[in-house]
Amino acid sequence: MSKFDVPYKIYLDEKDIPSSWYNVRADMKNKPAPLIHPATLKPLSFEEMRPIFCDELIRQELDDTTPYIRIPNEIQNFYKMYRPSPLVHAVYLEELLGTPAHIFYKFEGNNTSGSHKLNSAIAQAYYAKKQGLKGVTTETGAGQWGTALAMACSFFQLECKVYMVKVSYEQKPFRREVMRTYGASVTPSPSMDTKIGRKINADHPNTTGSLGCAISEAVEVATSTDGYRYVLGSVLNQVLLHQSVIGLETKAACEKYGIKPDIIIGCAGGGSNLGGLISPFMGEKLRGEADYQFIAVEPASCPSFTRGKFAYDFCDTGKVCPMAKMYTLGHDFIPSANHAGGLRYHGMSSILSQLYHDGMMEARAVEQTSVFEAAEMFARVEGILPAPESSHAIRVAIDEALKCKETGEEKTIIMGLTGTGYFDMTAYEKYNDGTMTDYIPTDEDLAKGFATIPNVSL
Amino acid sequence: MSKFDVPYKIYLDEKDIPSSWYNVRADMKNKPAPLIHPATLKPLSFEEMRPIFCDELIRQELDDTTPYIRIPNEIQNFYKMYRPSPLVHAVYLEELLGTPAHIFYKFEGNNTSGSHKLNSAIAQAYYAKKQGLKGVTTETGAGQWGTALAMACSFFQLECKVYMVKVSYEQKPFRREVMRTYGASVTPSPSMDTKIGRKINADHPNTTGSLGCAISEAVEVATSTDGYRYVLGSVLNQVLLHQSVIGLETKAACEKYGIKPDIIIGCAGGGSNLGGLISPFMGEKLRGEADYQFIAVEPASCPSFTRGKFAYDFCDTGKVCPMAKMYTLGHDFIPSANHAGGLRYHGMSSILSQLYHDGMMEARAVEQTSVFEAAEMFARVEGILPAPESSHAIRVAIDEALKCKETGEEKTIIMGLTGTGYFDMTAYEKYNDGTMTDYIPTDEDLAKGFATIPNVSL
Repeated sequence: MSKFDVPYKIYLDEKDIPSSWYNVRADMKNKPAPLIHPATLKPLSFEEMRPIFCDELIRQELDDTTPYIRIPNEIQNFYKMYRPSPLVHAVYLEELLGTPAHIFYKFEGNNTSGSHKLNSAIAQAYYAKKQGLKGVTTETGAGQWGTALAMACSFFQLECKVYMVKVSYEQKPFRREVMRTYGASVTPSPSMDTKIGRKINADHPNTTGSLGCAISEAVEVATSTDGYRYVLGSVLNQVLLHQSVIGLETKAACEKYGIKPDIIIGCAGGGSNLGGLISPFMGEKLRGEADYQFIAVEPASCPSFTRGKFAYDFCDTGKVCPMAKMYTLGHDFIPSANHAGGLRYHGMSSILSQLYHDGMMEARAVEQTSVFEAAEMFARVEGILPAPESSHAIRVAIDEALKCKETGEEKTIIMGLTGTGYFDMTAYEKYNDGTMTDYIPTDEDLAKGFATIPNVSL
Repeated sequence: MSKFDVPYKIYLDEKDIPSSWYNVRADMKNKPAPLIHPATLKPLSFEEMRPIFCDELIRQELDDTTPYIRIPNEIQNFYKMYRPSPLVHAVYLEELLGTPAHIFYKFEGNNTSGSHKLNSAIAQAYYAKKQGLKGVTTETGAGQWGTALAMACSFFQLECKVYMVKVSYEQKPFRREVMRTYGASVTPSPSMDTKIGRKINADHPNTTGSLGCAISEAVEVATSTDGYRYVLGSVLNQVLLHQSVIGLETKAACEKYGIKPDIIIGCAGGGSNLGGLISPFMGEKLRGEADYQFIAVEPASCPSFTRGKFAYDFCDTGKVCPMAKMYTLGHDFIPSANHAGGLRYHGMSSILSQLYHDGMMEARAVEQTSVFEAAEMFARVEGILPAPESSHAIRVAIDEALKCKETGEEKTIIMGLTGTGYFDMTAYEKYNDGTMTDYIPTDEDLAKGFATIPNVSL
């Protein structure tokens, strides 16, 4: 296959935007473990979840048998604003590496939220609006989810309160302004606005915040404010369901152009992008129709898959949320402050955790300077400045392509390029100045987090 | 025509990327006046321009007869990385305004430079490389051109020195980091590195800089450094030529979907976007084949078209550049420091100046708070956070659509959406905080600039 046998950039037509989401759980023999109530230790019922989540989203959360769920017209119309997203043949990266591998990336950054997060944000805002709610609360780490949700809420004229991990709030003041431009309120977390925020500030006066802690605050506000619910940008089954548009479009593009991936790579924080990208391919693998190598890439500073425990744990620091069975570093785990990007959640999607546990996928942990090296290499030849999160996938795609160079194998690699790094220039500045450092938690560091994992099973 | 009779977003195919640029000068009876030498006051010859510009670009600058100029394959391949750009039907904006008008926007922001500037940057870098040069210098105002050139130089492995208007350098530190990530050096202008920079700093100790002044510095460095030439992101004929890809694609999309624009609107600083967008349509008008209303939109704080003089003037503050005949506010004119975006050049493309002088197009000046009001309105419904520059066009598109609401006319309006505002959040913050102010120069303010325009004619 020569460089331009397939078009450089594969656009689908508007009619190729999927009309249904794909629910990978329907094809899983070992279903992901259900969310459980921290008091009763029993699976959460629909009724028990209603104070926290929107009704329709709870139905999606609990449904592990329906393979395809129709995307409402309003959401399909919104998708048309920025989808289908392109699948791009990374010809210049291949040339730079001198690899026989074929590298493709599914680029989700061409929308104002700057990432794939909008795919689920618009769905969650739609169901909240449909239920007649007044507003939603959420947390955001790197700020991509908060931006996406602010855009979605603005579109459906819902109120939006965002609790933003303090370190990101400080490093990314412009993210906050984007959210404000879309009418959202943004509070650095832990704040003094909530009971749990005040407690965390008292217990850890120098904390830079964590997603687990911001989640607790957002849930507290949602459950104590009339007409509000809480929404989450990753981890949950419903989010992976919405994000399956990424994988469905990727698969459609592969079929249209006869591309057969050997390896599919995605960065993994809570798992929304990776889960969405691989879902339809994983479905084929689960049904025994095809085989693929799936690689989750996580930061070495927050290694849930590669060094975490597969256990029930709290989803949040303040323990106000349900418990999920997942690969976890313990709900008190907070990555080192030198960690620049997102991907800082202590746990991982239950769906992906089960698939990883069952040996259906692999995981790698990479250090941030090597991630920025890959990012800059990619930016200079492919013309897209990637988000630090996305660059984790680039790092491993490059590593795999270089392996092919050694072995001479012509593997086809697809990676998820989740977003752009325009709001991450503080981190790029550190890398450009040579002052970026790496951090790998010691076993002792991790032991502290593990000690907080409750001894719970169903 | 109902909202979805045409697809919301019109993508062309890769094969619809033009293979030639269109040179509107070939169809102009009154040709734009040539650049003249400030000492001899005679049209600059090819040889006289060679110390400043790349040879092939000089040929393009001087060629006012060839209607189509072939785009080299290397540039066409680079265009494939981010083109064709979508023409989008602004259905949600129409709905919000309740207008019978049909509004479309040609969106040039989906590339890392964040604007249309890349269309010319890659061409100029290509010709510099082909000539065997070591590097290029340039100026940048809002930072979009500098970013685009840094990307283009990185792609062709050329050195890139950028002089950035001081006020933008300070307001947009992250723009600087993007350029550095692409390997460029960035210096705030006026600097102490050049003779002219030192003189301007001495004469105007509190200056926030201007494009005219940054141009002088960049030209001084280019002409005094071996293997370097100077490149410019707007104003010049060659730049409008490269930017004709915008208009050619827009025309192709119109033909594909049977859209017949009544009004075509673009923001105008030096004229690169507007000139590129309207060129092929203007060609039809010049040849008497069709009629369109063209509207240039400029900031009230820098009103070259609406309040400037049509005269020969220096292109730069330091008078080291050739002189051009154009609508100008005087080469010493510097817009008020409260002016947030780009579009701060004292002059205007000679091509557009001639067309405006001949009554082939109109111009409007708008104030920045009304521009940001339009920007936020657009962002919330259309899902794209526009650059302040682009938002000038949005402002007038909205105004025209509201006129249609009054008259009941179903006019079709196309506007150029040149880029995204991700690096302009300082300005958005001011607007969100209610602290943004407007500035309209008094006649006395302008008189000072006019006094510097030399009394020169051919």
